[in-house]
This record gives sequence, C-alpha cells and structure tokens, in this order.
Amino acid sequence: MSKTDWSKQEKTIGRIAFEAAYFRECMAARDVVRKMAAEIDDPPGLWRLSDFLTEKRKEIDEKYDYRYSVLALVFARLIREGWIKQEDLVGLSDEKLEQIQEFAETGIKPGN
Amino acid sequence: MSKTDWSKQEKTIGRIAFEAAYFRECMAARDVVRKMAAEIDDPPGLWRLSDFLTEKRKEIDEKYDYRYSVLALVFARLIREGWIKQEDLVGLSDEKLEQIQEFAETGIKPGN
Repeated sequence: MSKTDWSKQEKTIGRIAFEAAYFRECMAARDVVRKMAAEIDDPPGLWRLSDFLTEKRKEIDEKYDYRYSVLALVFARLIREGWIKQEDLVGLSDEKLEQIQEFAETGIKPGN
Repeated sequence: MSKTDWSKQEKTIGRIAFEAAYFRECMAARDVVRKMAAEIDDPPGLWRLSDFLTEKRKEIDEKYDYRYSVLALVFARLIREGWIKQEDLVGLSDEKLEQIQEFAETGIKPGN
C-alpha cells in the first residue's frame, strides 16, 4: 500500500487507533473538568469552566479529522501529543509508518 | 417612591438581592455541573455538559437584567423561581413590592 491508499486492514487499524485516541483525550478533558468543577466557588469560576469546554470541543473537533488524505498528519500529531503510540499503528504499511514518524518528529500539523 | 423611580436606598436593597440571587443560581448550576461531571463516562457525556453550560449561561445572562425599567419583572421571576424571597426586598416602596408580588403571581416575564 502507498502512503495515501489505505487497505481494508489499514482502515480498521487506523479507525481503532483514532477512536481510542479520541476517547482518551475526551476522558482527560473530563478529568480536568471534574477538577475545575470541584474548585468553583464563585460565578466567574463557572464561566471559566464553560469557556474551557467550548475551547476544548473546538480543538478536538478540528484535530480529529478522519479523512485518509490527512490521516498520517493527524496520527503524527496524536503521537506527538501522547494520545497514541507508534505500536498502536502496527499493521500499517512501512511507507505510512515512516511518513507518520517523520511528521511526528518534524511537527507538521494538518493545514500547515 | 413610585413604581419606576428607585431611591438610593432602594437601589442598594435591589442590588444586594439581585447579586445574591445571581450567586445562588450560579452555585446551583455549579452543583449540577459537578454531578454531571462525576457521571461522564464517554465523550458524548462531556459534550452534553458543554451544551448544558452554554445554555445555562445564555439563560442566566438574559435573566439577570439590572435595568430599573425591568427590575420589578426580574425580581418577580426570581421570586417565582425561588432565587429570592419577598423578605429580601423589604425596604422597597409599597408600590414596588405590590407590583413585584402581582407580577410574581401572574407570571409575567420581561419581554412578555
């Protein structure tokens, strides 16, 4: 398989890694929300939590873009940020793994 | 004092009751947020909390309108919803108290 064509097996591996990262990142945000909520003792604290969630949602919505044309970049970012590991992607073609690793090291983001 | 002119003392009483209601309602929302946050176990639960906060903020922003021209209606609503009691408004003119009571009983809202 080339860098841009995804086999059926690769799509399955990619989808599982993608969904797992999404779940982990949302649950990490949930933990921050619980901590913030526990510490709220005035109205501005409540609105800070609202702002945090609005921003986090926007960030996550933008980040988790499951188009095959950008997926290598998405995975590179998720590796860099610690939401997935290289091992989660075992089974992708060597070309894809090398490309993802290269993007992860150089810090290229989708849209750059 | 008439129904629409607010003396300095009435303004002080009004401001204190208004701020206290705002604080109580925000802290009640905070308690709901804590309960929702404690129960989140998947990403949709996180976004439901975000939606709740966005809606609550909009509702509270619209409700807490401190213009003297609408304040009797605002207080009537706050009494009806339990965020203030008639006793919190002692010191306002009899005309204002009667008007607020009447609005509270008839359920008129600002903007109606």
